Amino acid sequence: MKKVLVLHGPNLNLLGEREPEVYGTMTLETIDARLQEGGGRLGLEVNARQSNHEGELIDALHGARAWAQGVVFNPGAYAHTSIALRDAVAAIDLPVIEVHLSNVLAREGFRRRLLIAPACAGQVTGFGWRSYLLALQALAWMLDAGEEGA
Amino acid sequence: MKKVLVLHGPNLNLLGEREPEVYGTMTLETIDARLQEGGGRLGLEVNARQSNHEGELIDALHGARAWAQGVVFNPGAYAHTSIALRDAVAAIDLPVIEVHLSNVLAREGFRRRLLIAPACAGQVTGFGWRSYLLALQALAWMLDAGEEGA
Amino acid sequence: MKKVLVLHGPNLNLLGEREPEVYGTMTLETIDARLQEGGGRLGLEVNARQSNHEGELIDALHGARAWAQGVVFNPGAYAHTSIALRDAVAAIDLPVIEVHLSNVLAREGFRRRLLIAPACAGQVTGFGWRSYLLALQALAWMLDAGEEGA
Amino acid sequence: MKKVLVLHGPNLNLLGEREPEVYGTMTLETIDARLQEGGGRLGLEVNARQSNHEGELIDALHGARAWAQGVVFNPGAYAHTSIALRDAVAAIDLPVIEVHLSNVLAREGFRRRLLIAPACAGQVTGFGWRSYLLALQALAWMLDAGEEGA
Amino acid sequence: MKKVLVLHGPNLNLLGEREPEVYGTMTLETIDARLQEGGGRLGLEVNARQSNHEGELIDALHGARAWAQGVVFNPGAYAHTSIALRDAVAAIDLPVIEVHLSNVLAREGFRRRLLIAPACAGQVTGFGWRSYLLALQALAWMLDAGEEGA
Amino acid sequence: MKKVLVLHGPNLNLLGEREPEVYGTMTLETIDARLQEGGGRLGLEVNARQSNHEGELIDALHGARAWAQGVVFNPGAYAHTSIALRDAVAAIDLPVIEVHLSNVLAREGFRRRLLIAPACAGQVTGFGWRSYLLALQALAWMLDAGEEGA
Amino acid sequence: MKKVLVLHGPNLNLLGEREPEVYGTMTLETIDARLQEGGGRLGLEVNARQSNHEGELIDALHGARAWAQGVVFNPGAYAHTSIALRDAVAAIDLPVIEVHLSNVLAREGFRRRLLIAPACAGQVTGFGWRSYLLALQALAWMLDAGEEGA
Amino acid sequence: MKKVLVLHGPNLNLLGEREPEVYGTMTLETIDARLQEGGGRLGLEVNARQSNHEGELIDALHGARAWAQGVVFNPGAYAHTSIALRDAVAAIDLPVIEVHLSNVLAREGFRRRLLIAPACAGQVTGFGWRSYLLALQALAWMLDAGEEGA
Amino acid sequence: MKKVLVLHGPNLNLLGEREPEVYGTMTLETIDARLQEGGGRLGLEVNARQSNHEGELIDALHGARAWAQGVVFNPGAYAHTSIALRDAVAAIDLPVIEVHLSNVLAREGFRRRLLIAPACAGQVTGFGWRSYLLALQALAWMLDAGEEGA
Amino acid sequence: MKKVLVLHGPNLNLLGEREPEVYGTMTLETIDARLQEGGGRLGLEVNARQSNHEGELIDALHGARAWAQGVVFNPGAYAHTSIALRDAVAAIDLPVIEVHLSNVLAREGFRRRLLIAPACAGQVTGFGWRSYLLALQALAWMLDAGEEGA
Amino acid sequence: MKKVLVLHGPNLNLLGEREPEVYGTMTLETIDARLQEGGGRLGLEVNARQSNHEGELIDALHGARAWAQGVVFNPGAYAHTSIALRDAVAAIDLPVIEVHLSNVLAREGFRRRLLIAPACAGQVTGFGWRSYLLALQALAWMLDAGEEGA
Amino acid sequence: MKKVLVLHGPNLNLLGEREPEVYGTMTLETIDARLQEGGGRLGLEVNARQSNHEGELIDALHGARAWAQGVVFNPGAYAHTSIALRDAVAAIDLPVIEVHLSNVLAREGFRRRLLIAPACAGQVTGFGWRSYLLALQALAWMLDAGEEGA
Repeated sequence: MKKVLVLHGPNLNLLGEREPEVYGTMTLETIDARLQEGGGRLGLEVNARQSNHEGELIDALHGARAWAQGVVFNPGAYAHTSIALRDAVAAIDLPVIEVHLSNVLAREGFRRRLLIAPACAGQVTGFGWRSYLLALQALAWMLDAGEEGA
Repeated sequence: MKKVLVLHGPNLNLLGEREPEVYGTMTLETIDARLQEGGGRLGLEVNARQSNHEGELIDALHGARAWAQGVVFNPGAYAHTSIALRDAVAAIDLPVIEVHLSNVLAREGFRRRLLIAPACAGQVTGFGWRSYLLALQALAWMLDAGEEGA
Repeated sequence: MKKVLVLHGPNLNLLGEREPEVYGTMTLETIDARLQEGGGRLGLEVNARQSNHEGELIDALHGARAWAQGVVFNPGAYAHTSIALRDAVAAIDLPVIEVHLSNVLAREGFRRRLLIAPACAGQVTGFGWRSYLLALQALAWMLDAGEEGA
Repeated sequence: MKKVLVLHGPNLNLLGEREPEVYGTMTLETIDARLQEGGGRLGLEVNARQSNHEGELIDALHGARAWAQGVVFNPGAYAHTSIALRDAVAAIDLPVIEVHLSNVLAREGFRRRLLIAPACAGQVTGFGWRSYLLALQALAWMLDAGEEGA
Repeated sequence: MKKVLVLHGPNLNLLGEREPEVYGTMTLETIDARLQEGGGRLGLEVNARQSNHEGELIDALHGARAWAQGVVFNPGAYAHTSIALRDAVAAIDLPVIEVHLSNVLAREGFRRRLLIAPACAGQVTGFGWRSYLLALQALAWMLDAGEEGA
Repeated sequence: MKKVLVLHGPNLNLLGEREPEVYGTMTLETIDARLQEGGGRLGLEVNARQSNHEGELIDALHGARAWAQGVVFNPGAYAHTSIALRDAVAAIDLPVIEVHLSNVLAREGFRRRLLIAPACAGQVTGFGWRSYLLALQALAWMLDAGEEGA
Repeated sequence: MKKVLVLHGPNLNLLGEREPEVYGTMTLETIDARLQEGGGRLGLEVNARQSNHEGELIDALHGARAWAQGVVFNPGAYAHTSIALRDAVAAIDLPVIEVHLSNVLAREGFRRRLLIAPACAGQVTGFGWRSYLLALQALAWMLDAGEEGA
Repeated sequence: MKKVLVLHGPNLNLLGEREPEVYGTMTLETIDARLQEGGGRLGLEVNARQSNHEGELIDALHGARAWAQGVVFNPGAYAHTSIALRDAVAAIDLPVIEVHLSNVLAREGFRRRLLIAPACAGQVTGFGWRSYLLALQALAWMLDAGEEGA
Repeated sequence: MKKVLVLHGPNLNLLGEREPEVYGTMTLETIDARLQEGGGRLGLEVNARQSNHEGELIDALHGARAWAQGVVFNPGAYAHTSIALRDAVAAIDLPVIEVHLSNVLAREGFRRRLLIAPACAGQVTGFGWRSYLLALQALAWMLDAGEEGA
Repeated sequence: MKKVLVLHGPNLNLLGEREPEVYGTMTLETIDARLQEGGGRLGLEVNARQSNHEGELIDALHGARAWAQGVVFNPGAYAHTSIALRDAVAAIDLPVIEVHLSNVLAREGFRRRLLIAPACAGQVTGFGWRSYLLALQALAWMLDAGEEGA
Repeated sequence: MKKVLVLHGPNLNLLGEREPEVYGTMTLETIDARLQEGGGRLGLEVNARQSNHEGELIDALHGARAWAQGVVFNPGAYAHTSIALRDAVAAIDLPVIEVHLSNVLAREGFRRRLLIAPACAGQVTGFGWRSYLLALQALAWMLDAGEEGA
Repeated sequence: MKKVLVLHGPNLNLLGEREPEVYGTMTLETIDARLQEGGGRLGLEVNARQSNHEGELIDALHGARAWAQGVVFNPGAYAHTSIALRDAVAAIDLPVIEVHLSNVLAREGFRRRLLIAPACAGQVTGFGWRSYLLALQALAWMLDAGEEGA
């Protein structure tokens, strides 16, 4: 079974408690449980991690080289400001898929700059916790020997 | 069975013939066939349409109000220049999901401006023809009465 | 009796159905009927045309040279993106008045760029369907030998 | 009979004397007389005021709350620089229509920034002194109980 | 007892009448009375002045050199456009504290440019009429021989 | 004999009628006749097409893959706004030369952005209808086995 | 007694040692002692915390939800770069007041961008350590049932 | 003898008192006396006026049409913000020369935008009160029938 | 026989030696010989000159007024930075055609600013040494009494 | 007698021949003669120099350190592009006054950037050849022990 | 023997493993060993530290005040985004030299903004691990009493 | 012994005389002597050249192809404006290292644009004349067969 790091960035630990009309009422624990379940159905063993620290997120991406075959990454607000995370994604040899719960392109202007995105394989944005699930599906396809590539 | 418009924008009729190292070797016909098949498995009847004409794409979106429950839309290069398409997406009362074959955020600077995106429900970007398939999955979930919303 | 082209741009065919709280509940057919009636009172024969296609709008402006003495033009979203329509307005020898239903200057930043406006005689903006009626009045004055010009 | 403030901004006192090929040969007195006459036909009592002082224009807008039902306002060059006038327009509970004699969007780049416009109900631009007359007509309609709104 | 000019800029004369949900229901007279009372408790004699005229505000700042030891200044919208007021603040040898009722940085983009601020000693922003009271407190400390400076 | 598509963009159908002091007095028909004649002398069979529709221009470029060996393209105002046409030029495997009648770089600022140009082989700009003739000459050289390349 | 988190951002641990001509000679310990004393007089129990780590500041803001009624926050240089801290401020349900020791608007251009400010209740800037004291006063008023709101 | 308006803008009434190391120790009265004397030597009757009010400066420029043959104008900070003054300069039929005491181009970035300058005949900048004297000399030459123009 | 200056700007002396995959293997001497030959066939006597010095290029343009009827000018990198050369082109009364070997619009962003171009008659870009030959052809047509102008 | 370098930048050698309606009909020789004469009346020995070469202008400024007491400098188009000349002006210990024949601020946008100006003592702009004469006057005053400085 | 902190920023722990064609095949351990050796030859005791955490880098800079005489700092991607690190460099009283392995100015546009650089003594960029060695040499010179300063 | 061109750009001939507090008191001759001595110790024969002329600097770079193995280049102010020098550096097949005496990134904003830098191998900035010495060391390493590349 292939192993996947699901990495949650800053403020996502508050999910379910913070602005539920925007982010839904599910907590991060519930989401992680659903992703483990859904990942399992796709043949993926999901290990989830959350941190509010840019440096810990870099460390986690580096660490994934040792045990994971792919990463699903919600960088939260660091998506708009962190070149260090972009370099970390580019430096590891794993496919990384960026996800966002809400449609960030429909929000404030400064959220339209997505600095990490060019180093990722792709993005899934705007579908709540199911953004992660779709990214796991995409990752599962990528990790299989694709019959005709992208 | 719910009906979905899959709408392909400019130059996508050349798929499989144009820069296969970037866009893959599958033709648009093959992709549409797979989407019909994949959509069927999700309980969706997929009707696909391609046009190089901004006006025809607007007409198609308007027309979908009469027969479809949702739209998967790859606006191609119009994603970066068309406010008229953005208004069309906002004007119809259907969920619209934007897809792109390649990771447009990793390409030229002018492709980082996504004008239609704020009017869509979400985006799936960078997974080749499977971007459409993931969008169909997202649409299927949306069209079901979601147990906890986004 | 002088002839006038009333030209409606993209998405205006949805009037009365789309966001009635913003655009009112009158359909385009009703508006056109009122403009024909109102135009008649001003000595103007009104012929109305709508298209979502930038190219058809250019064609309609070109065609008006053969039969009309003036144009009232709501370019919709093309107001913000089309240099080709600006050139078409500049190329024909007819007075063209730009109208908008809503106060576009009070909306998103990208709607503040009005590319066609410099080639028009003037603008009437923000008065709903009556923007057209005021523009017809202005056109009627222009087409009369004005006693003291602008 | 409803009362309307017609408010003229900086340099408009020179009308008829300054660059007549651009602004026409009518003086501000003549224009005001015509607006009183034209307003009368629309059931509006027109009181006109001109000032070159930003502060006096603000005072006049504030004062109108006590006696007028609407305002027709040509802010002249303050249209491009005054946030204080914008706030004044927003602060009073009267419909304000912005007018310009010439098509300001066809002039220098710095005239394309219209700071007061978003706080107004609409604009009439480019029809010489008749811009005011059209604005009076629009105001008359607004002050009547409109049968179908904007 | 030290004397302080409290200077209110454009549109602040409408306080209590204008958008009470944003600016509260207290009138400027009430606020001034409270500031005189509160200032008195801090050993400050408060003289308040309001004007909608940029020139009168400059004059008032100049005039304060003759009788006041400090200024609390709410420049209103001139905060974003007036270099002349900035120069006036820099030209007089009195400490000037800028206040705003609302959190201007949370409003439209053009309100984020604070031209006068660099010439002031500091800012107090977002606490309604109590912004002035806090500024009076700050001024009282400044006018005392501070034991350890800033 | 090699075949060449000469493709004229928006508003060029008005040539000879529109602003003759800028664009000359020759009609598009006369120009096309001269290009056929001049192309013949260079061993090129010229087929000319004009459209005001961005989508039809894309279709024409796509279609040229089936019968032409090269393209001379005057995109008119779409040169400044169309990424879709740029993608179409890049997608077909034919050399495309961009031409303009007037020196577009000497006109309004927005005409200095040439979006399609990077996808073309080169540009010929500013020589009236003879811009096309020079482009045909360049194309003839390109289509011959060049003795020393570019 | 209400509890307040006073949160100091990067480099503030050096206070009293670093550039005393700019930041004064008081150490952070002395300031915190004075704030505890001054807070006590206002009925507030002050708990102070300093960190150079963006992530720890986020954690501290999250943690305050469990025990504090309000926050006084000096984000230091993160004020200009951290969207993650802005989101943290917006995510917790406590009033947060931003303070700065120096008048940041009078310094380098890049310090004029205040990213966290829109999510705060207000700002107090430029009064040295007394900026905190004024913010505590503002917070005390906010936490009391204000008789007329902001 | 020809008559000249010397017009001083905002804050210039403080000359001699404000930042003497920058602006010198001469008061405006002394400067005006010297300009009257120096103007007299050039055959010019100098009438000087100062105001901090943008509107009064506009009024003064308008008024000069009735009695003066030329204007020497130091717009102070309004040089950088006032389009209304620019229009006033353009509207009157008198030569206007812009002067500044200090080299404004060597100061803050926002002082490099000179909005009124394009409407003036020329500028003299950086020579203290003698900037006015040089401008009077230039005006004297202009008002004579120049033997060889510019 | 008409005389033409062919003027080569900086770094063009390295042609044939520098990056031959970009600029071809022909030396400048060979190109000049071919241009003399090709010019001769067009009735033009070609005199070529190369310099890396902006000043010498200006001198050469000035000097051409004495002996040449037209200029073909490859300004190299000065195309993007030299207003002095633009003024020189505008100052002489000869038609000047700008050429570039490579398609400069397809290269780095700073090469998209073409400062000299607005002062030239037109441009030929992207056809290697044959860009010059096409420009000579264009110049030959211009120097003949054109039967129908541009 | 004090010595002054009058330094003319690029294209000024063409004066009297180039666009006389803009720059007048006087040649540079005539102007230099008049400046020598006018300088003499001011107690200044004028030595004039012209060059189209940026490097020679730098050399001339450096050289002036050995023999001149001041410089009047018309940098022509280099005013807008040369930081090297700015550094040369800053590096020598002589007062340098910048002059321009025409009002450069009233011309193209790129002429509004004056890079050398901040290093100069002041500017005289827009008075034709008499700009130099006024600058000589200013220089004469500066070189005298000014009774009250700038 | 003088002590030096060599501080490595984010992602540098991957050296030798990540993109060896760009960053070489040496690991950070090997580099640190060589720097200790090379530093020793220069009379410097080198202590190296790496962290992916912005906060830890700030802490390390602060800490160096207690034991080091200078710092060689490769801030990695934080060079482009961290004002907090810039403030930390400015706050400590040690010379800090910025180094980069690759020529960051030749990479993506966002790497051209170097926020920390103005607070450093200088930069050494583009020489791989030897950038550090050169910086150590520079530091050794600085820490010696330089005979003629910079 | 390998040969190296040390090339000094504009205004560097004034070293030791110009602003010694910024640039030190050593003349260029002394520096060149020290570089010859220091270069000799590294096995490099140093030939130094200075010019204020952009064209001569280009010529010198071209000429170095014939006799040198590397270049140390201080482009002075041309670093910020010259694309022609950038192209010259890119066109020759020699390693070029850019040096600056002062930390240019800590100075005016326009000095932060380094146009030549992307074409160089690396930069050494801010160490006075020793910047050159460090660059010579780097060049010596590069010219040796490096044991492990960058």
